[in-house]
Amino acid sequence: MAAKSGRVLLAYSGGLDTSCILAWLIEQGYEVYAFLADVGQEEDFAAAEKKALGIGAKKFFLEDLKKEFITELIYPAVQANCIYENVYLLGTSLARPVIARGMIEVADREGCDYVSHGCTGKGNDQVRFELAFYGLKPDIKVIAPWRLPEFYNRFPGRQALIAYAAQNNIPVAQTAAKPWSTDENLFHISYEAGILEDPDTTPPADMWKLTTSPEDASQEPQRLTIEFSKGLPVKVTVPDEDKVYTDAVEIFLALNALARKHGVGRIDIVENRFIGVKSRGCYESPGATILRAAHVDLEGLTLDRNVRALRDQFITIELGRVLYNGHFFTPEREFITSAIPASQRTVNGLVRLKLYKGNVVIEGRSSEEGLYDEQQSSMDELGGFEPTDTTGFIQIESIRIKKWAQANLRKSQAGVTAKDVYGSRV
Amino acid sequence: MAAKSGRVLLAYSGGLDTSCILAWLIEQGYEVYAFLADVGQEEDFAAAEKKALGIGAKKFFLEDLKKEFITELIYPAVQANCIYENVYLLGTSLARPVIARGMIEVADREGCDYVSHGCTGKGNDQVRFELAFYGLKPDIKVIAPWRLPEFYNRFPGRQALIAYAAQNNIPVAQTAAKPWSTDENLFHISYEAGILEDPDTTPPADMWKLTTSPEDASQEPQRLTIEFSKGLPVKVTVPDEDKVYTDAVEIFLALNALARKHGVGRIDIVENRFIGVKSRGCYESPGATILRAAHVDLEGLTLDRNVRALRDQFITIELGRVLYNGHFFTPEREFITSAIPASQRTVNGLVRLKLYKGNVVIEGRSSEEGLYDEQQSSMDELGGFEPTDTTGFIQIESIRIKKWAQANLRKSQAGVTAKDVYGSRV
Amino acid sequence: MAAKSGRVLLAYSGGLDTSCILAWLIEQGYEVYAFLADVGQEEDFAAAEKKALGIGAKKFFLEDLKKEFITELIYPAVQANCIYENVYLLGTSLARPVIARGMIEVADREGCDYVSHGCTGKGNDQVRFELAFYGLKPDIKVIAPWRLPEFYNRFPGRQALIAYAAQNNIPVAQTAAKPWSTDENLFHISYEAGILEDPDTTPPADMWKLTTSPEDASQEPQRLTIEFSKGLPVKVTVPDEDKVYTDAVEIFLALNALARKHGVGRIDIVENRFIGVKSRGCYESPGATILRAAHVDLEGLTLDRNVRALRDQFITIELGRVLYNGHFFTPEREFITSAIPASQRTVNGLVRLKLYKGNVVIEGRSSEEGLYDEQQSSMDELGGFEPTDTTGFIQIESIRIKKWAQANLRKSQAGVTAKDVYGSRV
Amino acid sequence: MAAKSGRVLLAYSGGLDTSCILAWLIEQGYEVYAFLADVGQEEDFAAAEKKALGIGAKKFFLEDLKKEFITELIYPAVQANCIYENVYLLGTSLARPVIARGMIEVADREGCDYVSHGCTGKGNDQVRFELAFYGLKPDIKVIAPWRLPEFYNRFPGRQALIAYAAQNNIPVAQTAAKPWSTDENLFHISYEAGILEDPDTTPPADMWKLTTSPEDASQEPQRLTIEFSKGLPVKVTVPDEDKVYTDAVEIFLALNALARKHGVGRIDIVENRFIGVKSRGCYESPGATILRAAHVDLEGLTLDRNVRALRDQFITIELGRVLYNGHFFTPEREFITSAIPASQRTVNGLVRLKLYKGNVVIEGRSSEEGLYDEQQSSMDELGGFEPTDTTGFIQIESIRIKKWAQANLRKSQAGVTAKDVYGSRV
Repeated sequence: MAAKSGRVLLAYSGGLDTSCILAWLIEQGYEVYAFLADVGQEEDFAAAEKKALGIGAKKFFLEDLKKEFITELIYPAVQANCIYENVYLLGTSLARPVIARGMIEVADREGCDYVSHGCTGKGNDQVRFELAFYGLKPDIKVIAPWRLPEFYNRFPGRQALIAYAAQNNIPVAQTAAKPWSTDENLFHISYEAGILEDPDTTPPADMWKLTTSPEDASQEPQRLTIEFSKGLPVKVTVPDEDKVYTDAVEIFLALNALARKHGVGRIDIVENRFIGVKSRGCYESPGATILRAAHVDLEGLTLDRNVRALRDQFITIELGRVLYNGHFFTPEREFITSAIPASQRTVNGLVRLKLYKGNVVIEGRSSEEGLYDEQQSSMDELGGFEPTDTTGFIQIESIRIKKWAQANLRKSQAGVTAKDVYGSRV
Repeated sequence: MAAKSGRVLLAYSGGLDTSCILAWLIEQGYEVYAFLADVGQEEDFAAAEKKALGIGAKKFFLEDLKKEFITELIYPAVQANCIYENVYLLGTSLARPVIARGMIEVADREGCDYVSHGCTGKGNDQVRFELAFYGLKPDIKVIAPWRLPEFYNRFPGRQALIAYAAQNNIPVAQTAAKPWSTDENLFHISYEAGILEDPDTTPPADMWKLTTSPEDASQEPQRLTIEFSKGLPVKVTVPDEDKVYTDAVEIFLALNALARKHGVGRIDIVENRFIGVKSRGCYESPGATILRAAHVDLEGLTLDRNVRALRDQFITIELGRVLYNGHFFTPEREFITSAIPASQRTVNGLVRLKLYKGNVVIEGRSSEEGLYDEQQSSMDELGGFEPTDTTGFIQIESIRIKKWAQANLRKSQAGVTAKDVYGSRV
Repeated sequence: MAAKSGRVLLAYSGGLDTSCILAWLIEQGYEVYAFLADVGQEEDFAAAEKKALGIGAKKFFLEDLKKEFITELIYPAVQANCIYENVYLLGTSLARPVIARGMIEVADREGCDYVSHGCTGKGNDQVRFELAFYGLKPDIKVIAPWRLPEFYNRFPGRQALIAYAAQNNIPVAQTAAKPWSTDENLFHISYEAGILEDPDTTPPADMWKLTTSPEDASQEPQRLTIEFSKGLPVKVTVPDEDKVYTDAVEIFLALNALARKHGVGRIDIVENRFIGVKSRGCYESPGATILRAAHVDLEGLTLDRNVRALRDQFITIELGRVLYNGHFFTPEREFITSAIPASQRTVNGLVRLKLYKGNVVIEGRSSEEGLYDEQQSSMDELGGFEPTDTTGFIQIESIRIKKWAQANLRKSQAGVTAKDVYGSRV
Repeated sequence: MAAKSGRVLLAYSGGLDTSCILAWLIEQGYEVYAFLADVGQEEDFAAAEKKALGIGAKKFFLEDLKKEFITELIYPAVQANCIYENVYLLGTSLARPVIARGMIEVADREGCDYVSHGCTGKGNDQVRFELAFYGLKPDIKVIAPWRLPEFYNRFPGRQALIAYAAQNNIPVAQTAAKPWSTDENLFHISYEAGILEDPDTTPPADMWKLTTSPEDASQEPQRLTIEFSKGLPVKVTVPDEDKVYTDAVEIFLALNALARKHGVGRIDIVENRFIGVKSRGCYESPGATILRAAHVDLEGLTLDRNVRALRDQFITIELGRVLYNGHFFTPEREFITSAIPASQRTVNGLVRLKLYKGNVVIEGRSSEEGLYDEQQSSMDELGGFEPTDTTGFIQIESIRIKKWAQANLRKSQAGVTAKDVYGSRV
């Protein structure tokens, strides 16, 4: 095969896979630049840089994307209460667009002909990365080694990669590989593959990294308050630590630390990947779990009923799907997110919470918005309310129901009971 | 005012309100029959009967509706994962249709001209009862005293009721009234009104009745397994108690007992009533919380992705709204529930759970359905999968995204970066 | 009954009903100001003013609301392709918010204590007016005579009104009343009630006012082009009349005139009113019918598939419902319409149409947006397209379908055919 | 390349493409059986059989699928008012599943190892066929020559096919090929590709095959009535022809003949293919257009408002998408169609129509269902209706709107007008 040429920007993690890919791309004839995004994961960035350059990368780019990760990706998801298949808070999905954008910006600036990544051919992340690349720069060329037969046939398993690493003097961590894969950022960590592929295997206790288990969590409950402005957290107060946080990154990190201590944010699910394969995943989303509970609660107090219902049915579900499937840089995402601000205009106020051994307990909430009205709500006083109005309301609401019931009864002939009308009762 | 006449079937609870209503209806000239439904609430039914007859009810009907409450109301809600405004499991809403149906059956059989209830004029339950009455028997006449000026002006508060009870020799419980109202059945208990009307007041610890607090719950985690057939629980096994439950009512009661012990199922929310008033409610739904977690989890393993997504967006949300608003005996409910069986045909299998201090932890799940395929899912083997197919998939998926991106770039003129195209970055 | 007092602003049409209401309000003791909105209906405004003042109105306000009717109400509906129950273009619904807003502005400025209208107690318009009043000025007081027993019992039919008019020297049109009611504005005219209440009665040919019948329409087809910018019509060209229109009001009037000549825009339906009563209505929406056809067509060329699908399912349907039910000045309308601009950013281009005897025929469309690509679409050339990509796409798309089919086959045991698997074939 | 082997069932049309594919498959080493479905297209089946066997097919299967095409595919689409992107009635989409099922049944019975078709690599039909194959028989192997490089590179255009036909003694129709492609069945005919690829080219008058143009259509209007039972046509009466049709196939053919005569059913659109490419298509769906208009109308009279709204938003839109994208043999289709019967239980009655020069005019409708009630609907009598109830209804409906309006006003400070509150007026 003729030698390839051109400059490739590789999404580099410092791990075995992308290190071997780096070496392999060079072997194919490409000039390779390595790109590493800081999205809050725990990682030795300096070591990764040294390693990449050692393997042969011509340049190394480390981009701190934490702030934009929070404000441009996580925030809309918080405002929209995004959740995938009722359970998953989308932590990996949310990071991919900012990483892809960071790469495209470097690729543009540095004159790269290709971008490349180490995602497998069965997962979601390859799709998320590549659709983001194409949505930002439609003529970019992508090299996905794990989908190239010349690569995946040459490296059929971990041992082949280790052997290749040895050949190429690529240092491999001395610690044994964990029997699962992870992806980490400041929002969450995911665990999948390996022993987790049996959906009936309980994850081992030492797998969980970002949180203490509820069993081992603090015996003491902890209180905090979160203040929201237009659906976004603007102040977190932790009275018993005498702490107040107002910066977006600090708020997130503080919530993570609290959740870690109190065992908040673990899930274990079987989910449906975009390509249609079912997959088992475990996730820790510590601070995000607190934030979601608080935001959902405050919307009860401050968001109009009909806006909430429409938002839940359309924005929450559709944006969740868009994010999961990697459709962030698309016209439908542009369309969907354009409706978020109008839904959050009134979501202003304070939520008081208690954390205790895995539980996020809402202890109270308050707001100046005025959509909640104690007098009006009260069962003990009229509060300007005319009970006779409700009689009219119920009569009007029942018009079409009565017509339907009359037709049912007519069909069932005279004398039958409700039981007959509705078959096996209902 | 001329004396009224005719026979009224009153939904009687034994409490102060419906006891006074009973006396008042008799005073107006009606003949009154009392109706009490056993939907699993903790109550002295014999005492209630004695009290009703003592006040002057001509007949008393006690109907055990627990089984049909579970199989006809709770089960479809479990299958559809129904939840109102993200948090509320609809325990009161679910009981109203079976109670209303029980009443209409007695009213039909016993020749009653009216049905009556003690619901307030601001709440959801009046609507739920009355729309159910009209959906079953469109020409039934309803007496809702709390919406009649001659009643609510005469009894402006609790003291007036107590005075009226004293006049009419109606025994009043010696214990002081709780500063909130409750509604209880085997699915849940609700708390609202009184001191809870301030949404920033934390409920007192002694309010909660059906569950131990997480703080006081057992220090020992407990395991159980729930087996589902077509989305319904058919067997609950509690290994360390050496117990197996297969009867619908027993399953529910067993889950309630386990949840109580482990502090599972409390919520505290501000919700939107059907009439458009915001209202604060606290709820305990112990067994239902376990059941929902298990059912949602098993659907991950056994339900097709697209069916799940459509069901979540339409059935789950619409049925939740229908139930909350009291639209059970309506054509839209008939329509919506007709789609549930097809969504649950494959939801068969076993879920293993751990309960611990308020947490419901999924520890594993299994099924014979075969939609999950370890080999196919595996990141470690191809499992009949061609990675090159995904390349084609991504290329096709990106067609319209690239067109959109090209148009964006064209509009932004040559030389601009992605940053320019997407405004404030995104 | 004690005399009423205070100042009332009455929505006055000049017809028998509102003239009698005007007199009756004065009789009750109110000071009455009359308000008449010009929303493009054919009416002798000077005569109406003279009549109102003659009856006793203290002031008369005529407001020309045509422009804001088009730009603030009709335009979003055009952009969103709003239609109620598949057929009705919402002409009356669209006018109510601007009329209500015009009234509230006058009521505020002139210090009116009340607003009043002549809508019946069974229809949609009472709801539309009053919810709009409350959404703009929540403490406004509304007098709806047709829902006041002292009014509707006194005037049980048209004859009673005519007698009252005679008593009060209110001139009544000499022409016999039409056996139906109408509501007209520049968007449409509606016909309902009277002989139309039998849904099997074909409307008489002389009922239709705004359009020629297809049978009597011109024998000659007529061409026109409509240019859209961001989903709104900005230029209408009628080549054979050598005419070009660019003003919003002129565009609408020109389309009306063309549609009238060519018999375009009649419908006859049974619809569901907001209060749950079914109702028969006939409508002519001449220009709007052309505009909708052109806009829908241009979206085919210029709007992304996924945006279109989401918009159709959510915005089109929900905004149609919101408008029909009179929920314009509500948080949900604010929320829904906030998403329209992002959906119309690319809807720019030209549509060529032919009108002929009731038909609106699309003859071609063009745009600079570039989402349509002849080469890419072509069946005759590859156009940069790799057919093998589609193979991958289909393989990936079939993953979950195959799993489902395998499960079906397994359940049906070996040897069965597709026929067995899918029951009565499908 | 080694010779291929095995038995292939080819979807054969008798045209140039599938004739060359037949010869090419034999040349590759396969044994080929030819399959031709009669779905109502105008075609010389005997000539096609002779041609296939002449080219070398070992067997030829002609299956009459008209009845199941109507009852199993078209009927659910009629009941659900399916339409794609507001305009397209899905005629080609509807035929594909029955053809694919017919093929799989023959392939099973005759022991074929492969199925094959002549669809291009850019269109929808390849996807529809193949997903249907996989949904019925997940292990079937598919040969799609237009996606095989060895085929499409060898036959880059029509001339190459004609040359290959000549080499192989395949007779080619003497008539010049039309400058577009068509697909025909008893529901519709489609036209695409060739000169139609310019979306601004008006289709030539002689393209349209199934209908007379409105200009040339009969000068005389024609009346007919369609009787529906559970949403399906069961009797069509054409009084002036003294004809009554009750058989499913005859009804469809009769409606086609009437529509043809009166110029009903042409459309011309740009649509979005499943693969994300925009494509221009022209369609004639003559009888289906009449049927849809009548069905939609009857639902106005006989279907509950809320069922209709839910059905429109979910079933109509989702089933349309499912059909268009070829997802008929999938779990989501099973789920969606399971809800149709409950939505059509009351859709019983008669619709009277007039056809005239492209127009389908509803002249009246009637039903015994009783959901429409003239008295209740009437503006001229109370009909058991209490207008005061509506006052209560409006008051309750306005509760949350007033709260929102109060908050808006508060935010705008005292003294501001509605104009200030709502920004640029709305």
